[in-house]
Amino acid sequence: MKPMSLKNLLLPAAMLLAALTASAQWGRRAPVSPEILPGNSVTFRLLAKEASRVALAGSWMPGWGAVEEMKSDTGLWTVTVGPLSSEMHTYAFVVDGVRMPDPGNVNMVRDGYRYESMFMVPGDKAALYSTGETPRGNLEKVWYPSPVLGMERLMYVYTPPGYKDNNGRYPVLYLLHGGGGDEDAWTTLGRAPQILDNLVAAGKAKPMIVVMTNGNPGQAAAPVVMPPAPQTGRQGPSAMGQGKFEESLVKDVIPFIDRQFRTLPGKDNRAVSGLSMGGMQTMNIAGDYPETFSYFGVMSMGLTDRSRFGNPEDPGERIRKLEKLRNSGVKLYWIACGTDDFLYNSARDLCRFLDEQQFPYRYLETGGGHTWSNWRIYLSELAPQLFR
Amino acid sequence: MKPMSLKNLLLPAAMLLAALTASAQWGRRAPVSPEILPGNSVTFRLLAKEASRVALAGSWMPGWGAVEEMKSDTGLWTVTVGPLSSEMHTYAFVVDGVRMPDPGNVNMVRDGYRYESMFMVPGDKAALYSTGETPRGNLEKVWYPSPVLGMERLMYVYTPPGYKDNNGRYPVLYLLHGGGGDEDAWTTLGRAPQILDNLVAAGKAKPMIVVMTNGNPGQAAAPVVMPPAPQTGRQGPSAMGQGKFEESLVKDVIPFIDRQFRTLPGKDNRAVSGLSMGGMQTMNIAGDYPETFSYFGVMSMGLTDRSRFGNPEDPGERIRKLEKLRNSGVKLYWIACGTDDFLYNSARDLCRFLDEQQFPYRYLETGGGHTWSNWRIYLSELAPQLFR
Repeated sequence: MKPMSLKNLLLPAAMLLAALTASAQWGRRAPVSPEILPGNSVTFRLLAKEASRVALAGSWMPGWGAVEEMKSDTGLWTVTVGPLSSEMHTYAFVVDGVRMPDPGNVNMVRDGYRYESMFMVPGDKAALYSTGETPRGNLEKVWYPSPVLGMERLMYVYTPPGYKDNNGRYPVLYLLHGGGGDEDAWTTLGRAPQILDNLVAAGKAKPMIVVMTNGNPGQAAAPVVMPPAPQTGRQGPSAMGQGKFEESLVKDVIPFIDRQFRTLPGKDNRAVSGLSMGGMQTMNIAGDYPETFSYFGVMSMGLTDRSRFGNPEDPGERIRKLEKLRNSGVKLYWIACGTDDFLYNSARDLCRFLDEQQFPYRYLETGGGHTWSNWRIYLSELAPQLFR
Repeated sequence: MKPMSLKNLLLPAAMLLAALTASAQWGRRAPVSPEILPGNSVTFRLLAKEASRVALAGSWMPGWGAVEEMKSDTGLWTVTVGPLSSEMHTYAFVVDGVRMPDPGNVNMVRDGYRYESMFMVPGDKAALYSTGETPRGNLEKVWYPSPVLGMERLMYVYTPPGYKDNNGRYPVLYLLHGGGGDEDAWTTLGRAPQILDNLVAAGKAKPMIVVMTNGNPGQAAAPVVMPPAPQTGRQGPSAMGQGKFEESLVKDVIPFIDRQFRTLPGKDNRAVSGLSMGGMQTMNIAGDYPETFSYFGVMSMGLTDRSRFGNPEDPGERIRKLEKLRNSGVKLYWIACGTDDFLYNSARDLCRFLDEQQFPYRYLETGGGHTWSNWRIYLSELAPQLFR
């Protein structure tokens, strides 16, 4: 309680500044990387004085194992690639055989158990996938009870710009991820909030709520939220194909969303779409719950031998289910696939089956394969067709 | 439209399974790491056949540069450390001089521009920081207009368990991060949602809304949301100390939160707390907006020479502001600091100043320094004292 001298008040400013900017300093240890050059070539840099080999692996390269060697005289490894197309690209460095994200790049995305660094090359797709100056929707992590799966589960709910400023009701798109993914995938790799914000701002899509669940029926939430015990192995897509996720979506999720969010009622205000495993779930829902949705989007998936997943289906049953779906009044059955997708023939088989049954559908064929580059575009093509 | 043979329907199951589990496969390339052994020693593993030196850097080690060498005969580098205390620990591998996260560990946290791998050692703190089986609150990313700062900005709003199932109103804690951080920090490194969920479930804290803003007045959102142009340098804590963030919190954020969320009105239902830079902002708000909050928490901060930040203050002014604060009716003025914190003397100076002015406060002194280990504990000590 002794009187305080003014000097005591003066913390050395250098120390304080050092601490308050510490995190920024950490970032500055790394050289600028990636640097997007005029004309959209891109330079990557890594400071690694003790490394003997450094290479770059990028999502624009032909396959998983492909790399571009980097060069160094001084320990600053560099490589310039491109020009690259406007896109959300991901990449990693391979340092003496070990794959790692770029320490100079704060932008990173997780795909299942794997992290990669991310950047956008300016242009049409970067504009579609970026947070722009247009009004933005909110994104909520929502816990909900799932009696069907016997647990509390986590999902994301995107509400469109202005949702909280009015009392309006909105249609709902249920958007499903693929195998190895989880509830994060459409908000990170998929850029769904940015795509919806930008399409709505451009008047190309109606404002809608987007619900992104975890499609793995054995998982309550992504492993970053509920970490699996490392020793017991990881949650795979087991129990896929037994229809439990589909049942929980219809019986647990939809009533919950209709209760907690201002939704427009009825099937004509509900769409379901998914990629790969989520495309299969979309098809299952169309077949098993024909009175629930009027809009369906099947991305990078088609007819498959479901018996291999413990869910056998005879062709007669498939036809009977399609008739029920037809009678329920479908507004859109939409299929999209890339010509390089290993499921391309499966998607074409689905088209042929629907042709044969004279069941109306729309089909989008793109280049490329089983990739998020395609799924982001598919979402941006599907959303404008919904709730019209 | 030709008739389809059944054989066409049968996609080779091996191919389909390979794709649907692709992401899980990526994870499985890496050996199990970290493995928490009985007794809470921890083994780390990295497969790096071409590397000549691999070391481990961990948050439990004495300083930033400290590492533990790892050993390898076969290219599988390992080290066992500990036993470690129950805590949320972070770490990185240093592979031939390059710092990188553990590719075998899906849990990663970002601190400013730096990513580190994360794990919990079981026990009291892990239980407090983990998503348990208790009811959970939701977390919303909310865009709001800030006329004071001239932009749309992003913040997180945590709503307590049951918020959407009733019509009740709740008190609000405004929780501020430190220099180099952003609106993510308290939800990731800080574990604020989990801490609040667990304290509320144990009956130790009242259910409350927690608002976590971006405290950098020049930033609309974290760099992972609004990437800075790499060439133009990074957003530092410039413009800190000019009071613009504090003004925007009071004039932009609070009215917005009171409009869009079911808050209890008035200063007795509002708390503000922050660490380091956020502790300085908390003190500034106490001084400049004495009628806004009744609860204040200053973490790892104290009296400083504000003139170095372009915001000079004479001691008489400081005393006059404290009198206004006293007259406004403060319920809690709480200070917490670690004995190893480089701001320890600054926090002690603040205590002495308040003693001198016979201004009531509570002070928590812990071991440790300017670390998230301390700030998580400070939140868990502060929250039970709020809104009583």
